Amino acid sequence: MAGSSFGNILKITTWGESHGKGIGVVVDGCPAGIELSEEDIQIYLDRRKPGQSRYTTQRNESDAVEILSGIFEGKTTGTPISMVIFNQDQKSRDYSEIASYYRPGHADYTFDTKYGFRDYRGGGRSSGRETIGRVAAGAIAAKLLKQLGITCTTYTRSIGPVEIQSFDADAICDNPLYMPDASAARKAQEYLETCMKNQDSSGGIIECIIQGIPAGIGDPVFEKLDANLAKAIFSIGAVKGFEIGDGFDAAKANGSTNNDSFCITKTGAIGKSTNHSGGILGGMSDGSPIVFRTAVKPTPSISSLQKTVSQSGEEIEISIHGRHDPVIVPRAVVVVESMALLTIADAMLLNMAAKSDDVCRFYKK
Amino acid sequence: MAGSSFGNILKITTWGESHGKGIGVVVDGCPAGIELSEEDIQIYLDRRKPGQSRYTTQRNESDAVEILSGIFEGKTTGTPISMVIFNQDQKSRDYSEIASYYRPGHADYTFDTKYGFRDYRGGGRSSGRETIGRVAAGAIAAKLLKQLGITCTTYTRSIGPVEIQSFDADAICDNPLYMPDASAARKAQEYLETCMKNQDSSGGIIECIIQGIPAGIGDPVFEKLDANLAKAIFSIGAVKGFEIGDGFDAAKANGSTNNDSFCITKTGAIGKSTNHSGGILGGMSDGSPIVFRTAVKPTPSISSLQKTVSQSGEEIEISIHGRHDPVIVPRAVVVVESMALLTIADAMLLNMAAKSDDVCRFYKK
Amino acid sequence: MAGSSFGNILKITTWGESHGKGIGVVVDGCPAGIELSEEDIQIYLDRRKPGQSRYTTQRNESDAVEILSGIFEGKTTGTPISMVIFNQDQKSRDYSEIASYYRPGHADYTFDTKYGFRDYRGGGRSSGRETIGRVAAGAIAAKLLKQLGITCTTYTRSIGPVEIQSFDADAICDNPLYMPDASAARKAQEYLETCMKNQDSSGGIIECIIQGIPAGIGDPVFEKLDANLAKAIFSIGAVKGFEIGDGFDAAKANGSTNNDSFCITKTGAIGKSTNHSGGILGGMSDGSPIVFRTAVKPTPSISSLQKTVSQSGEEIEISIHGRHDPVIVPRAVVVVESMALLTIADAMLLNMAAKSDDVCRFYKK
Amino acid sequence: MAGSSFGNILKITTWGESHGKGIGVVVDGCPAGIELSEEDIQIYLDRRKPGQSRYTTQRNESDAVEILSGIFEGKTTGTPISMVIFNQDQKSRDYSEIASYYRPGHADYTFDTKYGFRDYRGGGRSSGRETIGRVAAGAIAAKLLKQLGITCTTYTRSIGPVEIQSFDADAICDNPLYMPDASAARKAQEYLETCMKNQDSSGGIIECIIQGIPAGIGDPVFEKLDANLAKAIFSIGAVKGFEIGDGFDAAKANGSTNNDSFCITKTGAIGKSTNHSGGILGGMSDGSPIVFRTAVKPTPSISSLQKTVSQSGEEIEISIHGRHDPVIVPRAVVVVESMALLTIADAMLLNMAAKSDDVCRFYKK
Repeated sequence: MAGSSFGNILKITTWGESHGKGIGVVVDGCPAGIELSEEDIQIYLDRRKPGQSRYTTQRNESDAVEILSGIFEGKTTGTPISMVIFNQDQKSRDYSEIASYYRPGHADYTFDTKYGFRDYRGGGRSSGRETIGRVAAGAIAAKLLKQLGITCTTYTRSIGPVEIQSFDADAICDNPLYMPDASAARKAQEYLETCMKNQDSSGGIIECIIQGIPAGIGDPVFEKLDANLAKAIFSIGAVKGFEIGDGFDAAKANGSTNNDSFCITKTGAIGKSTNHSGGILGGMSDGSPIVFRTAVKPTPSISSLQKTVSQSGEEIEISIHGRHDPVIVPRAVVVVESMALLTIADAMLLNMAAKSDDVCRFYKK
Repeated sequence: MAGSSFGNILKITTWGESHGKGIGVVVDGCPAGIELSEEDIQIYLDRRKPGQSRYTTQRNESDAVEILSGIFEGKTTGTPISMVIFNQDQKSRDYSEIASYYRPGHADYTFDTKYGFRDYRGGGRSSGRETIGRVAAGAIAAKLLKQLGITCTTYTRSIGPVEIQSFDADAICDNPLYMPDASAARKAQEYLETCMKNQDSSGGIIECIIQGIPAGIGDPVFEKLDANLAKAIFSIGAVKGFEIGDGFDAAKANGSTNNDSFCITKTGAIGKSTNHSGGILGGMSDGSPIVFRTAVKPTPSISSLQKTVSQSGEEIEISIHGRHDPVIVPRAVVVVESMALLTIADAMLLNMAAKSDDVCRFYKK
Repeated sequence: MAGSSFGNILKITTWGESHGKGIGVVVDGCPAGIELSEEDIQIYLDRRKPGQSRYTTQRNESDAVEILSGIFEGKTTGTPISMVIFNQDQKSRDYSEIASYYRPGHADYTFDTKYGFRDYRGGGRSSGRETIGRVAAGAIAAKLLKQLGITCTTYTRSIGPVEIQSFDADAICDNPLYMPDASAARKAQEYLETCMKNQDSSGGIIECIIQGIPAGIGDPVFEKLDANLAKAIFSIGAVKGFEIGDGFDAAKANGSTNNDSFCITKTGAIGKSTNHSGGILGGMSDGSPIVFRTAVKPTPSISSLQKTVSQSGEEIEISIHGRHDPVIVPRAVVVVESMALLTIADAMLLNMAAKSDDVCRFYKK
Repeated sequence: MAGSSFGNILKITTWGESHGKGIGVVVDGCPAGIELSEEDIQIYLDRRKPGQSRYTTQRNESDAVEILSGIFEGKTTGTPISMVIFNQDQKSRDYSEIASYYRPGHADYTFDTKYGFRDYRGGGRSSGRETIGRVAAGAIAAKLLKQLGITCTTYTRSIGPVEIQSFDADAICDNPLYMPDASAARKAQEYLETCMKNQDSSGGIIECIIQGIPAGIGDPVFEKLDANLAKAIFSIGAVKGFEIGDGFDAAKANGSTNNDSFCITKTGAIGKSTNHSGGILGGMSDGSPIVFRTAVKPTPSISSLQKTVSQSGEEIEISIHGRHDPVIVPRAVVVVESMALLTIADAMLLNMAAKSDDVCRFYKK
């Protein structure tokens, strides 16, 4: 099935494999007239670029984006924006070993079962490099939403057992783990050093806060804004959990503590005195910041010994070598942000036709 | 936007409000030739029927389904199956009070903001009765999947702080909370009595296990099976979290403990020695049971005093009376199961065209 | 496959068979706040009601619509509008004969091949009664578009060899064939009498003119407005051709005669001095009226002797009796109009997000 | 709106402008395991390459395709196949003149109205070069369908007033107009010479015959196979009409002459003794060849004098120079074929899930 597209009015289609010619995305349905340059995209891509710290793969890629269509005189034209990032460092090493067995925690076995064979070079389509297209598209959504006063802060909430104890937005970019707590970041780095020494890897949690969304975005039933966020985030490889607002803690709560009281804010508008809901009620934004968390599993590629099965059906022991991140979380931060922004942007464009009065006003302008 | 449809090949479209004429669903794309009767549907609907215990609303509805189309000589014809459940107990009480303010934790405010006004009778479209259509459709997915050897067990894992300590499938239907642990069920009922005495409500966690799915179902990128399950489950009102396999615990784990080793099973097939993945790798089923959990928030309608804002913009205090479940979880169990089965069934139908060899074989049969 | 839905933002899903319990439609994504009553729908339905003249089936149905959801206090709420028309005159006659063979020109054989069996009572899902849902939905699109100053005139252009020679909009409803030329209508009726005497049927052409559409509606590539109109109209049973503007005559024309010059109209706006394009250029409305024609084949059910094949595989001769229109065209007029209006309405809602400036203005209102 | 995608299971997304960096397409959902090389694609692209005769634009492009993803070891992997054709001959001439007015018969005005501005270089996105992506994708559909025994013959039926009088499949590629009648081809070339002398252009009709399709492909209601073919063909620029089987002639026919009798063929199978239906009954293929025709308007770019309006709102006279085809038809032949094959292929993949028995058999293989 055609599963490489996401979105309705603003729709992206990604393509590409880890060791193919490149990775790309077509962004269709972007409103016309937005100023957009390759630099706008590159800023986002650089946030997930490999080789930036000890904790990310040492694969040497500049991941430079090239825009092939959809821009004229520096602005989006309303037609599809095609972007490509050509692969540079596809080491032409011998893949016969990796081709011969199923790596635990990877999609080797499921790909083979579904399609009859697989592009085993560097994980093929299931490589983390697939997310490059998402990030390039996310940069466009970010630009569109910024015009509407919507901003997004995404960061690492925890690495393994190390969770942030304080929040300083300025600290996020001061450490390679994107943690808003310098002290936690130090402890997390120590933890990762231990993991690496043990030829092991770690999971973690990413948190995302979206501010400035007006109330009423999203739809009441199957196209709830939180449902689409959940799908968007769960479509990222290695994600194992998603929660919004109080999330799993809400399951232990009472109505009296979980409900957010409505109040009148200083500006005279309707607001909420708390935000247990995480900014969404009945599938529609409630005017408070949208807050969600996502659980990321440990990098499955580890060099310590593992049991598995060979393609010929024998039980074997393997040790995976190569350039692997000991933790996926820091580089996934911008991927999570990108998917969230794409989801929000699409929902906002769809929302324009919700009221008959708005439709009439639009066409009588 | 048209947000009341779910699925691709097997697509459902629900309609109806709590206090309108009825609730219904159109199930389109169901393969032809499945034996189906109203009894098949009713069995599922009866699992979410109100008034079955102290812990569910005392609204008196038989929720009897009527099939209006798509069945001929007792079998599905391949054309849309339209089902309706007429509302019976729409108390014609005075709704002017509830219309005059925004209930905390409900969609009153977001509906008003999005659409300009709302059907305030019993929650309108955002009522839990909206899920009736999902369950009626889920019964059909269950029938289809059963033919393929796929079964589903769904139950309450926790109510507030009370979590199951053991698992006995036979116990699930022996208590009104659908818990597979009789002792935990007793404690949970005591806990709910306290909540009710305090005019309060409780949240909880639902767990779902799907067995018999072959490997390779789902797609690698945006249409990952877990991404679609996440959306399906998050589209149910009151859901605040979703996790698969080890879920949020995976964030604290290491690769060496989180990876599932492949092995050769007694039948000589490829299997896994553990199931931390929850049955999905790279967005495709891996042949192990699919296991997921979902967090449900406490019923927002509580009779204890709450602060909120009136439609005219004044801060007020309210107390919500009426027929409300002190906990949503037990009745949501079958809704979660229904959405999961619909997601799985659709993915299995889509999967048939994945391999060129299969397509050739199909048309040369 | 789920093939009973049409549209994107404004989406309809139809269901029902000729001799089942009823026919219905769910209209989802309709903007909130439109005044809508069952009378609005009934006016449209009455235009395709059977038994209105000698030239339509004598099946005795009032085709009274019932709205089951989506309306509150007389206005659309933005949630799905479910409508049902219960079948009344499902003659419980013996269908064993019609079940035993494949009627020429009908979908009996293709249904059987695709689905393994068919609901043979009155044509089942492929009956003309399936269009009732389309017309009920079309009435809503008409109401929405009228608010935007868009109107539609649809009529019979020809019946068999008899084509209109003049156009008088007032005459359309003065004859049972909906022809805008009283003289042609008389000749066409004479022609139909001959057909009926010969136990035969006739085809014809329907023309549709949509006025008031602003320029820029529709999209440049696959979602061209004319492409969607073509699909919408071709999805009506018995349609065999669709052309827009000069249509097939354009194939014989030269660029110098087929091009429409742009000009400045009396109001100072940009207009066109001719309308060979039929109101669409590059897939988007050009501000001129949209004009299209559709060819409808003769009713396949005729009582004269025909050769065919029985379900058991024998060549036989049959004569189809029952209540059949000698011509489908007059009753299809409102179906064509409904599908056109639904297509236009959906395109107009989608168009609201085309320009970044409009999106910004919308959210800063 | 995202309007650059087409198809459901087999979905294509095109991008690119006439004078941008290139033109491309992403083909998603292609079944895995099909042998595919750039040569397979190039054969199709070469059929629409410019500069092949006096009657096509002299733009000098090799239109060489490059496959960027989705192929491994010479076979499709089931993941998106991204193809790009870089533009080479984007003459960097002065476009200020063409930018200053609206060309009659072109999408300049509608683009400007919809999006606020346009990429005016060579027609931008509405250029005929947009179809390159469709043809590259069509080549893949052709390869898939060939494995299933389905072939397609597409040719020019008429150029202006010159229509074929005989059919010789071998003659199609013997003349630059792709006419299956050498004599008509000569006359058509003479006619085109006259058009060119008059600084004018011509329209024409393309006919397409698809053989080998089993009965039952397509769906009964909105996703009728002919409805999707109509949309596919009408989504090609310059198309003004589409008819299937007897098409508009059916409007003049009687049921007794238009119905196709079913019969038993020599092989003992069910067949039809005629094919007025054009191979589709009730929206589903009936086992006969699918036959349709499409009307193509004359090239709107002509060098003779035309009236139009400047962007600043003045009525002016223009004469369009440049490299334009005097007739679009010959180069559109392969575009029509490509869109038809993509439509058929998608419908065949969707059809696999129509019967419950087939689904059960598939998963028990």
